[in-house]
Amino acid sequence: MDIFEAMQKRHSYRGPFTNGPVNADDLKKIVSSGLIAPSGCNAQTTEFVIVDDKEIVAQINKMHELNKAMQQARAYIACLVGTDPKPVYQEFSFEVEDCAAAVENMLLAITALGYASVWIDGWLRREGRAASIAEMLNVPDTKTIRILLPIGVPADQSKQPDKKSFQERAFFNKYNA
Amino acid sequence: MDIFEAMQKRHSYRGPFTNGPVNADDLKKIVSSGLIAPSGCNAQTTEFVIVDDKEIVAQINKMHELNKAMQQARAYIACLVGTDPKPVYQEFSFEVEDCAAAVENMLLAITALGYASVWIDGWLRREGRAASIAEMLNVPDTKTIRILLPIGVPADQSKQPDKKSFQERAFFNKYNA
Repeated sequence: MDIFEAMQKRHSYRGPFTNGPVNADDLKKIVSSGLIAPSGCNAQTTEFVIVDDKEIVAQINKMHELNKAMQQARAYIACLVGTDPKPVYQEFSFEVEDCAAAVENMLLAITALGYASVWIDGWLRREGRAASIAEMLNVPDTKTIRILLPIGVPADQSKQPDKKSFQERAFFNKYNA
Repeated sequence: MDIFEAMQKRHSYRGPFTNGPVNADDLKKIVSSGLIAPSGCNAQTTEFVIVDDKEIVAQINKMHELNKAMQQARAYIACLVGTDPKPVYQEFSFEVEDCAAAVENMLLAITALGYASVWIDGWLRREGRAASIAEMLNVPDTKTIRILLPIGVPADQSKQPDKKSFQERAFFNKYNA
């Protein structure tokens, strides 16, 4: 798929999934897209646990009260950052940025391969959810699940919502000019 | 360009640029790719100042002591986040993640259009550099330049450095299994 088409088609999908499988080769291709995303000082800090074991998937499926994509996902990708990130440039670490860039690459790959997903972040941070899932996946205390991507074949047609206009968010040379 | 090719070709370019122009339509297309990136609760928090005014470009060109791409860029994109971001989901804001996802989309667009760039972040945060550039661009105190992208036509052939292997960073179902 053309890069500009993939960026336009990618959208946060919270609808139902079909019974269509998410095969392991595609999951590898999606995560490989995350591995080649940029990272601060090329430190490649984000790690990934691909979840396609039926019992673990079923356990995670039960956790979200509303989001159908979370309830019906056939696979998940858990994206891990350090619990206490080390500086890589002067006093700064970039693990959050690294993880976000990797996730965007993966969302584009998911779109290009005919699957759908939604970036799950804030929900994980409440009620110990990230820690519960981390325990299922044997994630050590030194790592946190920062972002979770539920993956499946979308049952509904949907598209990217309208975005604010270029003029509202972008300027040439002087802010708000 | 195919999405997987663009992700593979994108790399941090710190080399010299040719005198080739970076035209305004391409800059709009690049920033439009940033506008359609995902953002927490679709809040679309990142704003962009595209710098192609020759005098301002020349001022920024002088700031970096080492990075040729920064010294020779024909244009820049300054990516703005809130100085004091408001929560959009429970107590959380996602402006850093929003900005990083937008930057990754833009880097892929830059690659597909035949330009090159490098994600400038930590350098901006030191010695008041972000604030100096913000002043040139009339950015208000409520916004911070979080990421800067120098853009030009690369004079050198270069490519993405080798990355850690899949096995080193990715696992199926159990961490480190």
